[in-house]
Formats: sequence, C-alpha cells, structure tokens
Amino acid sequence: MVKEVIKSQIKVHRIYTTESVFDGFEEITDLISEKELRKISQLVHPNTAIALCEIPEEKPIRSDGFILALDDVRDPGNLGTIIRLADWFGTEQLICSKETVDLYNPKVIQATMGSFLRVSINYVDLKVFFDNYSHPVLGAFMQGENIYHTDFPENSILLMGNEANGISQKLLPYITQKISIPKYGRNQQTESLNVAMATGIIMGERVSRYF
Amino acid sequence: MVKEVIKSQIKVHRIYTTESVFDGFEEITDLISEKELRKISQLVHPNTAIALCEIPEEKPIRSDGFILALDDVRDPGNLGTIIRLADWFGTEQLICSKETVDLYNPKVIQATMGSFLRVSINYVDLKVFFDNYSHPVLGAFMQGENIYHTDFPENSILLMGNEANGISQKLLPYITQKISIPKYGRNQQTESLNVAMATGIIMGERVSRYF
Repeated sequence: MVKEVIKSQIKVHRIYTTESVFDGFEEITDLISEKELRKISQLVHPNTAIALCEIPEEKPIRSDGFILALDDVRDPGNLGTIIRLADWFGTEQLICSKETVDLYNPKVIQATMGSFLRVSINYVDLKVFFDNYSHPVLGAFMQGENIYHTDFPENSILLMGNEANGISQKLLPYITQKISIPKYGRNQQTESLNVAMATGIIMGERVSRYF
Repeated sequence: MVKEVIKSQIKVHRIYTTESVFDGFEEITDLISEKELRKISQLVHPNTAIALCEIPEEKPIRSDGFILALDDVRDPGNLGTIIRLADWFGTEQLICSKETVDLYNPKVIQATMGSFLRVSINYVDLKVFFDNYSHPVLGAFMQGENIYHTDFPENSILLMGNEANGISQKLLPYITQKISIPKYGRNQQTESLNVAMATGIIMGERVSRYF
C-alpha cells in the first residue's frame, strides 16, 4: 500500500521502513528496526513500511452516474471492504453519512487494500444531499423488490444502511425504490447478510447488466 | 444461537446463562454471573448464554445438486461467512478440504449466525472426492470465463481456493471450467476480492438464473 501511496497524489511527509528505501524518497525516509515498526504500527503483524501522509481534501461530488451511499456504516472492516468493492466494480463515487466510520481509521485503510486511492469518497449530510438530488435512490432492505428483477438506472444511488438498524427513518422519504436480495431454497431462516456482503451481491448484479 | 441450537438435532449437554432458563431445559441449565460468562466465553462481549453441545457426526455427502467446495480456506470469519451465504442461497451441501479451518472453531460458529445448523458440511480429501465425482467442477480464478456468461449446471461443484494461494495445484486437473468475476470500469488495479466476498458474488449470480 505504501508503494501505491507514493505513486498517488497524496502528499507523503515521511516513510518509516525496515527494508530498502524507495527510489526518490530517500530524503523523507527513516530506516527503523522491526521492534520500532511494531511500536508505531496499529497492526499485530506489520509488514515493512509505514507512511505518514497528509489527509487530502475531499474532491467535489460527481452526482452524475452511479453513486454508492452509506448511511451510518460503523464497522471499519465493512467500510474498507465496501471501498474495495466500489473499486472492483468501477464505482467512482462513494458518499457516506457523517456518522459513518472515518475513512482514515487505520483499520479502514488497511481493509481497502489500496482501493481508497481510486474511489472518490465524501462525507455529507445525506438528508441535505438527497434534497438536491434528482435521480432515483435505490435502498437495500430486508423486504423489497427482488434485485434480479430491478432496473439499475445509470444515474442513480444505491443506499446501504447501518449494520444493526438499516437505513435511518429520516432518509426513507428519499427512497424511490426498496430492493432486496432474495433468499433461495428450502431454508428461509437466515436472518440477514452482512452489509458489505449485501453490497457486493447487489453491485455484482448491477454490473452483470453491462456484460 | 443457543435458542436455535436447542431446537435443532444437536445434543445439548449443558446451558450456562445469566438470564431466564429456557423452557424444558431447566435440568441442564446453570444460572451464572456475567463475570463467569465472560470467563468461559471466547467473545469480548458475550451475550447471555453458552451451550455445551456434542459435535454431531457428519451426514453422508449428497453429491447430486449444487455443491460448494472449499480448498484450504483458513480464516474462521471467511468460513463462517461462507456457511451463512450457503444457507441464504439454498446451498445444502458444503465440502471442505481437510486443511480448511475447523467448523467448530468458536469464531466460525459465531460468524455463521446459526447457519451451521442448516447446511450439511463435510471434511474430505478433495482429490479423492473429485476422483469419484462425475459432474462439472467450476473453479474460481483470477483469470477465467466471465461469471456473467457462465452456465451453472444444476449438478455441479463450485470450488473456491485458499485466501493467499487460491486453488491448489493438485486439484487443477479436476477443474472443468475456470471462472472469474470481471472487474468493471476504468480502474483495473484492484488486486483481488476476499474469498468470502467472491463466493457471495458468484453464488448471487448463480441463483439469479432461478428468478
């Protein structure tokens, strides 16, 4: 990930590494011991380098095209996984409610596997955003139209809710279509799917229309 | 999950709970303190009950129909998530290589959210199993036929590989078709998807044919 970051537009202040120094970054690199790396890393098993970077400013939201929106997703692993999915499936714009876990939480960054560099992510008041948004807003619910029968308009939002409570009450008026991943087969007792998994399955179905 | 287990065919030896006793299970229940529950639980935030159960014997493998097979999936969270997916998408038979993480690892059981009660799971030598299997074996790879153009025969196996190494060399001769989740859009740098996520997206695409 450090290798990717130094090639990106993110401003790198300092690199701490136990191994060889990256070409062109000698002046801002410190060689450190593995013990020191373990002390400054938040991982149990850190790799070989840590970069100290400047958090970039958010870019303006591109409100055309397909947007993925998250309402209060709290788990860092879920947010990181969803950013990786967005990158995989070519979703360039992600918007998060103000209550969504911080993108720069180290667990989120780690779980993105570098994908945070390639997806534009904005934190907004979703209610205010939806007030000014004119395209369809598809919301994922336990009950809704079968995703396999849903049209996914090119200009639209897919809104995913909080792990425990789903999409918040105050956003319901903005949902133009409730959608749902149908269960299949005899067993109908499974309670729910994790929000990142549900996002993956819905996005997988959405892009299937382009192949 | 304890509520589901006591209704299942699994033999329950003892229940330890901080709350009310389940009807009909008074004789095998001990009321304990929250402190005691935290001591015996492997969770940081245990709920209110733990059941001590007998591990049931494996049922014979049903080799007709659709089977999900795992080659050396090591992460307990991944196995648990995949069992939950199998349950959601009506896959009744899961077979795991002997090197796959133990189903009865507490983290696996926890991640299944009870779904382990509804999916038949067998640990086998996959090579021996495939030697005697006559239907198609679809294997998930980084390069393979686009899943959105793949036929998923009703009698077939979907084989998913290890987190780091994919499907092992010794099983390659049994793969009748390599399949792959295509990336979409401008960014083509995402390295891979997590094995549980890939399983979810492929299974989601497979069942889409039935709706």
